[in-house]
Amino acid sequence: MTAAPLRLAIAGLGTVGVGVIKMLTRNANLIERRTGRPVVISAISARSRSKDRGITLKSFDWEDDPVAMAKRDDVDVFVELMGGTDGPAKAATEAALNAGKDVVTANKAMLAVHGNELAKLAEDADKLIRFEAAVAGGIPVVKALTEGLAGNEITRVLGVMNGTCNYILTRMETAGLPYEEVFAEADALGYLEADPNLDVGGIDAGHKLALLSSIAYGTKVDFDGVVLEGIGAITIEDINAAARMGYRIKLLGVSQMTGRGLEQRMTPCLVPANSPLGQLEGGTNMVILEGEDSGTIVLRGAGAGEGPTASAVMSDILDIARGTRISTFGQPVGNLVASKPAKADTPAAFYLRFHLQDKPGALAKVAAGLGEAGVSIAQMRQVEETQGVAQVIIVTHKTSRDSLDRALDAVSGSKVLDGATVALRIEDI
Amino acid sequence: MTAAPLRLAIAGLGTVGVGVIKMLTRNANLIERRTGRPVVISAISARSRSKDRGITLKSFDWEDDPVAMAKRDDVDVFVELMGGTDGPAKAATEAALNAGKDVVTANKAMLAVHGNELAKLAEDADKLIRFEAAVAGGIPVVKALTEGLAGNEITRVLGVMNGTCNYILTRMETAGLPYEEVFAEADALGYLEADPNLDVGGIDAGHKLALLSSIAYGTKVDFDGVVLEGIGAITIEDINAAARMGYRIKLLGVSQMTGRGLEQRMTPCLVPANSPLGQLEGGTNMVILEGEDSGTIVLRGAGAGEGPTASAVMSDILDIARGTRISTFGQPVGNLVASKPAKADTPAAFYLRFHLQDKPGALAKVAAGLGEAGVSIAQMRQVEETQGVAQVIIVTHKTSRDSLDRALDAVSGSKVLDGATVALRIEDI
Repeated sequence: MTAAPLRLAIAGLGTVGVGVIKMLTRNANLIERRTGRPVVISAISARSRSKDRGITLKSFDWEDDPVAMAKRDDVDVFVELMGGTDGPAKAATEAALNAGKDVVTANKAMLAVHGNELAKLAEDADKLIRFEAAVAGGIPVVKALTEGLAGNEITRVLGVMNGTCNYILTRMETAGLPYEEVFAEADALGYLEADPNLDVGGIDAGHKLALLSSIAYGTKVDFDGVVLEGIGAITIEDINAAARMGYRIKLLGVSQMTGRGLEQRMTPCLVPANSPLGQLEGGTNMVILEGEDSGTIVLRGAGAGEGPTASAVMSDILDIARGTRISTFGQPVGNLVASKPAKADTPAAFYLRFHLQDKPGALAKVAAGLGEAGVSIAQMRQVEETQGVAQVIIVTHKTSRDSLDRALDAVSGSKVLDGATVALRIEDI
Repeated sequence: MTAAPLRLAIAGLGTVGVGVIKMLTRNANLIERRTGRPVVISAISARSRSKDRGITLKSFDWEDDPVAMAKRDDVDVFVELMGGTDGPAKAATEAALNAGKDVVTANKAMLAVHGNELAKLAEDADKLIRFEAAVAGGIPVVKALTEGLAGNEITRVLGVMNGTCNYILTRMETAGLPYEEVFAEADALGYLEADPNLDVGGIDAGHKLALLSSIAYGTKVDFDGVVLEGIGAITIEDINAAARMGYRIKLLGVSQMTGRGLEQRMTPCLVPANSPLGQLEGGTNMVILEGEDSGTIVLRGAGAGEGPTASAVMSDILDIARGTRISTFGQPVGNLVASKPAKADTPAAFYLRFHLQDKPGALAKVAAGLGEAGVSIAQMRQVEETQGVAQVIIVTHKTSRDSLDRALDAVSGSKVLDGATVALRIEDI
């Protein structure tokens, strides 16, 4: 006797949706062996029916309206792969939950912004929202954190969660090319989102970090609490200066619960070049989970692409087929507490780059500004001098961000700078 | 209203058992928030009641007999942390399943040898055996493979799964010490099993690989099919010669389903020094899962120790508390097929070390022996000469193990060797 099939409706037939259909088709036997039941597609939907997607879709029931599809009687799981914070993705997700369907989604933006209300809706309907594909592509990091480390107090979550930014930074380093040039390359290769700021501004990765924080610390999702800083100000000189000191620059997410509140940062940081994070090349993602008992667990894999992202969607679908029921953020919504964004970050050493006007006493004013704010200098180097402007690189000892900001204000007020200052955290790992 | 507690019986109070009790106590609130129910200890058992374990056990009901404890009415989950292939661990596991209890175990030896029959017993009783802690300590690799990559055809599983061996090999390299000396150090530090051959002979890691193979390929557990080779023959000269060519030597497990059958090897191999596996230091474990769609997923963490192993045990306990029900090896026992050990391995390049008698024509005979068997040479170097013995290092081009064995037989028959030959696979990663 075969168990009842699990019936899917798939909304969104971009790369990931097509990948999911391919996996469901190619691995149908394997999936039935592993879950004990067939997993079938009842209906599909996308903006364009006629677009050539490289696979035949004729055998699947087509729906023009994802909201209508989400409510169909012959659907158990609504698979939301449309994307977008609001609009049809959110409307269809809500419709699915209200109609008593589980939801599997890859939509980090929707969950980062509306996750709390959607999780409540799911819980009230006794249904699931699963989102393995929303974070770090093919790496099963949501599962590792929610289930694999479930017995642990989580002490820190950190990682490189946007492959495009990591590609740009490593390509700048290996090819010695400026940011603008590599950005244009990445654009031509189709690596960038329609709004590139989602990638290079750190927003996409920040969405992912906000979701992991909620699971890690049992807090409501607080994307607004993520300190965001993109990679657009990073120069090849920064990358080279960091390398000379044994560091590499990564767009690094860090989430940490402290006595001062929840720290969530997605910012360019220096990490030791010989650490797993420092060695991460190209579009690969890495997430590091630190548990009080587990110790440091490092997960690495493709952060995007048809196969890896579809693999993550399939993981959620197969969990549901097997009967696994886990709350959206790992515990009932009523247990999730509102997080207070930390007023001050955990102290760290910082990398600073100043452009100094080439006049007597300029360097002394910088040093004085730092010293008066209590920021002490570990290394200082004048790197380059062109057209009357000197570039000075400083690495500080550990300091609070508050002190650093006071110091930078003082230096800025001393009128010896020519252009913006770069300040990058050196994360302890 | 609080849900019914999940009630545990814990058998075995060594490092891991004590770690589990500490986590259950320290994280009781967190566990209840995450699972929706309290997780409590109904009874504990170990060989010695009086031994000082650094924690107070007075509040727990003591049982001298783990088998009797496994059958108690006030127990839902039997947590087997005694170890041992047979004996009390197996008897109590069987008793628990027969009495309708789920089982959580860290016992790789028992499952590698008796896993098929125990999984059948569990399935007949509609109960679970979960064993995250049996493989790679704190790394949630059983979960990642069984659930996280469930939608994938798995193409290869490989990894360093015995921290003691990795400690010995990296310590030999960094300190320039011979195997015997580092082995003695590891023994003095308490890193070795009571029977050290379980570690350095590759048996312990082989047990782990056999379990992962079963999940990966839907095959019955076949520990007898694992080709085992320990690290005892590795010399500091091998390590240095490998390093000069850009490799490091690791006790590497490889499991791969091919048209020729299932390849399972736990043998010392050369891996690129700049690969994640090559960079693995000390007692850390790394498992790499290759899925057809997911691509390569790398997992890294502590492979042993109180906290990490207890964390893995807790993951299984919390899964059960949450109601997750997954078959022992990821699918019903009736679906698992008997694997045929591969008659021939996937071709690879090999590292060879010969001790040659220092007489004219010796090197030529080696070269001829290889050539006649169709093994071609990529690099050859005479490394060292002492007391009339020359050491020759050869790296071959890709060859079948069959051809290599014929070549080594021919060289051996040519009577120019003085001492044993070392042949190490260079694994493609």
